Amino acid sequence: MLKVAMIGAGSVVFVKNLLTDILDFPELRDVTITLHDIDQERLETAGMMTRWTAAQFDANPVIEEHLDRRAALKDADFVINMVQIGMHEATLLDFEIPRKYGLKQTIADSLGIGGMFRGLRTIPFMLDLVADMRELCPDAVLLNYTNPMSILTQAVYEAYPEQKVIGLCHNVQNTAHELASYLDVPVESLSYDCAGINHMTWFLKLKIDDEDAYPRLWAAMENPEIFAKDKVRFELMRSFGRFISESSEHNAEYTPYFLKSEADIAAYDVPVDEYIRRSVRNLGRYAETRRKLLAGETFPLERSREYGSLIIHAMATGKPQLIYGNVRNDGLIDNLPNGCCVEVPVVVDKSGMRACNAGSLPPELAGYCAPHVYVQDLTVKAALNGDRDQVHRAAMLDRHATSVLSIKDIRAMVDELIEAHGDAMPAGIRGRTATTLRKSA
Amino acid sequence: MLKVAMIGAGSVVFVKNLLTDILDFPELRDVTITLHDIDQERLETAGMMTRWTAAQFDANPVIEEHLDRRAALKDADFVINMVQIGMHEATLLDFEIPRKYGLKQTIADSLGIGGMFRGLRTIPFMLDLVADMRELCPDAVLLNYTNPMSILTQAVYEAYPEQKVIGLCHNVQNTAHELASYLDVPVESLSYDCAGINHMTWFLKLKIDDEDAYPRLWAAMENPEIFAKDKVRFELMRSFGRFISESSEHNAEYTPYFLKSEADIAAYDVPVDEYIRRSVRNLGRYAETRRKLLAGETFPLERSREYGSLIIHAMATGKPQLIYGNVRNDGLIDNLPNGCCVEVPVVVDKSGMRACNAGSLPPELAGYCAPHVYVQDLTVKAALNGDRDQVHRAAMLDRHATSVLSIKDIRAMVDELIEAHGDAMPAGIRGRTATTLRKSA
Amino acid sequence: MLKVAMIGAGSVVFVKNLLTDILDFPELRDVTITLHDIDQERLETAGMMTRWTAAQFDANPVIEEHLDRRAALKDADFVINMVQIGMHEATLLDFEIPRKYGLKQTIADSLGIGGMFRGLRTIPFMLDLVADMRELCPDAVLLNYTNPMSILTQAVYEAYPEQKVIGLCHNVQNTAHELASYLDVPVESLSYDCAGINHMTWFLKLKIDDEDAYPRLWAAMENPEIFAKDKVRFELMRSFGRFISESSEHNAEYTPYFLKSEADIAAYDVPVDEYIRRSVRNLGRYAETRRKLLAGETFPLERSREYGSLIIHAMATGKPQLIYGNVRNDGLIDNLPNGCCVEVPVVVDKSGMRACNAGSLPPELAGYCAPHVYVQDLTVKAALNGDRDQVHRAAMLDRHATSVLSIKDIRAMVDELIEAHGDAMPAGIRGRTATTLRKSA
Amino acid sequence: MLKVAMIGAGSVVFVKNLLTDILDFPELRDVTITLHDIDQERLETAGMMTRWTAAQFDANPVIEEHLDRRAALKDADFVINMVQIGMHEATLLDFEIPRKYGLKQTIADSLGIGGMFRGLRTIPFMLDLVADMRELCPDAVLLNYTNPMSILTQAVYEAYPEQKVIGLCHNVQNTAHELASYLDVPVESLSYDCAGINHMTWFLKLKIDDEDAYPRLWAAMENPEIFAKDKVRFELMRSFGRFISESSEHNAEYTPYFLKSEADIAAYDVPVDEYIRRSVRNLGRYAETRRKLLAGETFPLERSREYGSLIIHAMATGKPQLIYGNVRNDGLIDNLPNGCCVEVPVVVDKSGMRACNAGSLPPELAGYCAPHVYVQDLTVKAALNGDRDQVHRAAMLDRHATSVLSIKDIRAMVDELIEAHGDAMPAGIRGRTATTLRKSA
Repeated sequence: MLKVAMIGAGSVVFVKNLLTDILDFPELRDVTITLHDIDQERLETAGMMTRWTAAQFDANPVIEEHLDRRAALKDADFVINMVQIGMHEATLLDFEIPRKYGLKQTIADSLGIGGMFRGLRTIPFMLDLVADMRELCPDAVLLNYTNPMSILTQAVYEAYPEQKVIGLCHNVQNTAHELASYLDVPVESLSYDCAGINHMTWFLKLKIDDEDAYPRLWAAMENPEIFAKDKVRFELMRSFGRFISESSEHNAEYTPYFLKSEADIAAYDVPVDEYIRRSVRNLGRYAETRRKLLAGETFPLERSREYGSLIIHAMATGKPQLIYGNVRNDGLIDNLPNGCCVEVPVVVDKSGMRACNAGSLPPELAGYCAPHVYVQDLTVKAALNGDRDQVHRAAMLDRHATSVLSIKDIRAMVDELIEAHGDAMPAGIRGRTATTLRKSA
Repeated sequence: MLKVAMIGAGSVVFVKNLLTDILDFPELRDVTITLHDIDQERLETAGMMTRWTAAQFDANPVIEEHLDRRAALKDADFVINMVQIGMHEATLLDFEIPRKYGLKQTIADSLGIGGMFRGLRTIPFMLDLVADMRELCPDAVLLNYTNPMSILTQAVYEAYPEQKVIGLCHNVQNTAHELASYLDVPVESLSYDCAGINHMTWFLKLKIDDEDAYPRLWAAMENPEIFAKDKVRFELMRSFGRFISESSEHNAEYTPYFLKSEADIAAYDVPVDEYIRRSVRNLGRYAETRRKLLAGETFPLERSREYGSLIIHAMATGKPQLIYGNVRNDGLIDNLPNGCCVEVPVVVDKSGMRACNAGSLPPELAGYCAPHVYVQDLTVKAALNGDRDQVHRAAMLDRHATSVLSIKDIRAMVDELIEAHGDAMPAGIRGRTATTLRKSA
Repeated sequence: MLKVAMIGAGSVVFVKNLLTDILDFPELRDVTITLHDIDQERLETAGMMTRWTAAQFDANPVIEEHLDRRAALKDADFVINMVQIGMHEATLLDFEIPRKYGLKQTIADSLGIGGMFRGLRTIPFMLDLVADMRELCPDAVLLNYTNPMSILTQAVYEAYPEQKVIGLCHNVQNTAHELASYLDVPVESLSYDCAGINHMTWFLKLKIDDEDAYPRLWAAMENPEIFAKDKVRFELMRSFGRFISESSEHNAEYTPYFLKSEADIAAYDVPVDEYIRRSVRNLGRYAETRRKLLAGETFPLERSREYGSLIIHAMATGKPQLIYGNVRNDGLIDNLPNGCCVEVPVVVDKSGMRACNAGSLPPELAGYCAPHVYVQDLTVKAALNGDRDQVHRAAMLDRHATSVLSIKDIRAMVDELIEAHGDAMPAGIRGRTATTLRKSA
Repeated sequence: MLKVAMIGAGSVVFVKNLLTDILDFPELRDVTITLHDIDQERLETAGMMTRWTAAQFDANPVIEEHLDRRAALKDADFVINMVQIGMHEATLLDFEIPRKYGLKQTIADSLGIGGMFRGLRTIPFMLDLVADMRELCPDAVLLNYTNPMSILTQAVYEAYPEQKVIGLCHNVQNTAHELASYLDVPVESLSYDCAGINHMTWFLKLKIDDEDAYPRLWAAMENPEIFAKDKVRFELMRSFGRFISESSEHNAEYTPYFLKSEADIAAYDVPVDEYIRRSVRNLGRYAETRRKLLAGETFPLERSREYGSLIIHAMATGKPQLIYGNVRNDGLIDNLPNGCCVEVPVVVDKSGMRACNAGSLPPELAGYCAPHVYVQDLTVKAALNGDRDQVHRAAMLDRHATSVLSIKDIRAMVDELIEAHGDAMPAGIRGRTATTLRKSA
């Protein structure tokens, strides 16, 4: 009997979306769903939402709510991780401290200083979760949705090489929909070949049926209205020749190009501090969702673009699915370092998940991704080894931070962030004073 | 009979140094030296200097002066390249145009915008030189001393994989001497293990006899007098944990750390525009050297730290030598991309040159080198393919330029530099207007 | 409009099977099929069979017969190769000459001496075919069904790296059906993970639903009736721990285990000279098929297990398919040499074919495959370079031949085979006398 | 103060040779030599020999004799391993049991069945030795002279990746001397480029001064007198194009070419059971050496061709040496599997030992070495994992054994050998009955 554990189920709307996707497959309607959250009220809300969703499908899945994570994991076939460690308060720190030093951010959850610290405070949770999985459901597949995607996925496969894990995002699918709208074609007419790292996955080939879509995309970019919808990414295409995944607001904070000056921020409509606003909105949305559930109101119900249910369906039924996932680079992209976390096509069927070889990226695209890979690697190593120096070194290699801050400010900012996050930092990193950076050979 | 061709022999003092090194080996005193320069007077001066040097050793090498490069190359065993394409005037452009946009440089001859353009104007010469070598002395070893080292060496092995070539620099040797002085020990007591890319070769291990020297080096850095001698590199050691090769003035322009603000420039004593002053001095030195030769005055005569003569001696006699050289990365450093140009130990004996495996760099050091590797690769590809877009893309990945300039300014600066260098640019790059950056898939 | 070219369409029954598979997909029924054979009568027969098959589906594909191969290739989307170069006569030579020296074979069409020579005489045809494709249908995918699979596929991707090509066999699918019968379960209940080289693809994992099937397979092997059905392969499983693809009669001739002595031949029921009998039967079958077509009789009509139509369907519709295919080893199996031809999972959709990473084989299985990989590589190099020495060296590394023959006999046999095949051998190999094997460094 | 531990010092003549080499370097004469053997008398004899040798150099090294191995290892800088586990009796088993089944051997100490079993009984000792070294002299370099070279060296670096280890043999040096004699030139005039695996290291390039020596070597082979001196290796050169290291008597047992039939044995003068005779001779030589020492007689005293002293000298003085050594394949030979043990040039100086990249072997030479690499890997894994099945699988991949024996006989022979060696086999392999080969997935 198929059993899916949802960890961090307090992300109630996301739970509804994933469950809708799952139950939309008739073959999966006898699933068991175990919900876990550390917040009693949110867990209860998730339970209500799950039952409401099941009811819309006339399905009778077994639904369990567990404050005890281990009970939720026991004998699971799939574990879907969607936690947010530190919640709104930690997010605020990730924005406010850098901003004090002059470093502006937009989303701060994946790459860059914000991504690093979100990673540092989430890795200890990931390691605990997987330690439990090794014991309670060693054959289960971990589907990770929590950001920072590359850092967390890499932390899992470095610490537990035997754990089946894949990092899942919607950046490729969403970008495909956006491209379809810029090209004014149905998304079904598009086919594409993508590779890179999460949030920097390049549309290497893009076709409308059998026709190369790039000439039309270059032409579309000349239309100021279309350009205005995605300024950062069109500018990156102009510079590097290919369209990049995720969104303009995310990509704006990954490079030195768009946030160094007020002029650039204005020219490219960069929404500084955007994620703080979203985070506040999310709090409100949760409250409203709970209110509606209690009031017996209804919600929209349609398939999302998430890959989670496709993976579950493919493994359960054997019908192959091709998705994009984040996995260990075992020669998959041969001009990015082995061991880093890459986003490539992954085929899934009854035998599990198999990553596809993507060969070499064009050098300009590999060169665009590569600096981030080393920052991610150092962040993971810092957390796994409890090595505070590696946090500093990661920050010293971040493209955006170093284009804005002095060495002295980078150091002070990193130390202040570590201090502020306190016990949320991995052991070995927290609690020490700033007199680091003095290692011998 | 051993025959060594010196190409760009108008670098008269460098010719004297290499020849001194060679003739200092008794086994090599019957060498034939062929000198080539395109400047008749400089060639004549080189001839005088060569004969003066030989006389000091009571040696009777055959010395030939050739305005015709092909005659100099014919049947050579070693070809030593020390040309400077474009001379002082081109160097001025490489400084002045970037400076106009707000980009300060110190040396501008290896990495960064200056290095890229020096590379672009020198690659056509390198390809011509090697084409002649394939015909006239196909077994000869090309010892390249001309900068930008990595770009030129890579251009040769990419265009002519069968050509024996090594890029030679003194950055490791000089740094060893500087380290000895900071540590107050004789340089002979030091041993070390280095790897990286040219001008960014890291002293991974450093010993004084059998003792790890790093604790003493960290202590030495605390002495303000010593710190003041090499501020940039000590700061890099503080950040990244290891000492880096080349010098503080070179390294200052490779990263976003030291040239973004006047405050940093002052704090780290960064000598902006340094190479312009050196270049002027070099012109004066040449004139003075010629005057002294004509006047029959003498010159100091001592072994240099250059590896050239050691390679020639090892291949001629079979006594092994271990040097540092720049070669194709065929898995030598496994966390830098294959095919890039790395600086690693190379052992030389009668069988030729063999590069040593250096394994993995620590991630922070690989991460420091990696961005430059992609810029170099794109510069080489731009020149070999005549692809102006690749020049733009290389500039867009340069750490220093992007930390200072906007996208718009990078583009304008690159186009202006291409325009200014005119016919010196490789075919396919020059002559086109700035309407590039419009490529399809 | 989808266009499929069938080259070697005189394999009339195979044409019928592939076409049945294609037309069984409603979306593909408006396909254009171009048939090519060099034998007028066989081509005509293929045309009749194609039309008969189409009629059974009430489909109206465009069907063209071409004696001119170029006309058949023009603008094709898929080119399916099923030629047999040299036909029955060449096959006889491949058996009879080795047998004279004491080397027995069973099938002689893929690995071993027979496979080598079939490869040598087919490579020139493959190179011609692909040269035409580069000109007439450069975007077409070449689906190769002709043996020797690994050698021919490798020859194509070495000579034409830009050609889309995949080598297709039914060894995995057939083995799955056989395993299902030994396990007495429906084949649909099996899932598996396979990797290796063609005809030596190992069932690394094998499951009946969620249960490891190997314990039941070991038990089944103990049943003498089941063992008797597949003696060679069960014995290989006993020795190496996993079940191997293809069949006992093929595998018997690949190793030194089953054909060295009459005792082994008897004990393992090895059908010596089997393929000669099959080849005779095939001639009879063709005649009978033609007779039935002319007489208006009917044929069975059911989907085959071949992957060809699945690939066409997946690329045409975008619905992903997971098949096993033979492709260049670009790190796909990391303990077999790069560049060799491996059989691994390949996922196909609108974006084309992507090979999946298979990681490392267990050392015993890699060690079982590896010797053959070098023989294949040398055979390909021999043909591409016209290097007769490489043919000898390939033979000297063949496991079966060297376990039976002396060096002297291997040499004489190779030379006699080259002589006998005459102009069918690649230029540079044929026509020379046997005074080879005298090369300098 | 330099300290060298000799483990297995009862190999008295070898101790004398190494010590002569060491003391021949004036800089090394104040070395401390610690001798260890488990045989009291042999240890005493080794002590006498060591003192006699020191006296010839007027040197006063500290010489210690230790029955306790740990005392000998304490604080050593170099540990030289020359043990023979099982001595003459075990060697006899390695010959006699295979012979009973029909498998003839010549030396049986490195590759093949004899090498496998020598490896299996020596690995437990190696692991103990290195465990002690990690504790007592963690920075010491282990110079391994004991056979089977590749298996033992690989076992060390797999079990203790942090241990500095190199496998040393004289096969390259001796072959160079032999080649010089066949070519009738002084060995000093030869230079060469070799790579492969121990006892199968190929002379890829061979020069007499600047001239390719291979044409002269092919000519020399035509002289029946010269051919007669090295029949097996000349025949291998005729087949594979390059000369191989070690000797004809060793190489005869590595392949299916020379020992399958009495005719081949006679034609190639293969000395079956040679090592038994040598082993008996060695026993006599030891007795005679002891007698002479006690009688105060003298011994010849000249530098050997062993690399041991060169390594010690280079690390002590910093003067680089280029030797051939056996090390982990970290991409050194890129068409042999990573992790296998390869023999390549290694440069040594104060910084230690660095292996040189050897690139790709020609496919015929890689193909010649590769099968053995998998046998070695399986033997190492069998011992480290205590996996008896892996012993069987290793034997099933041995080229020579499988060319002579049936599967049934291979299995029986392996089981009988395991039984006969009893407690000398690694735990997990010994003691079990022959009902192995029944593993699940």
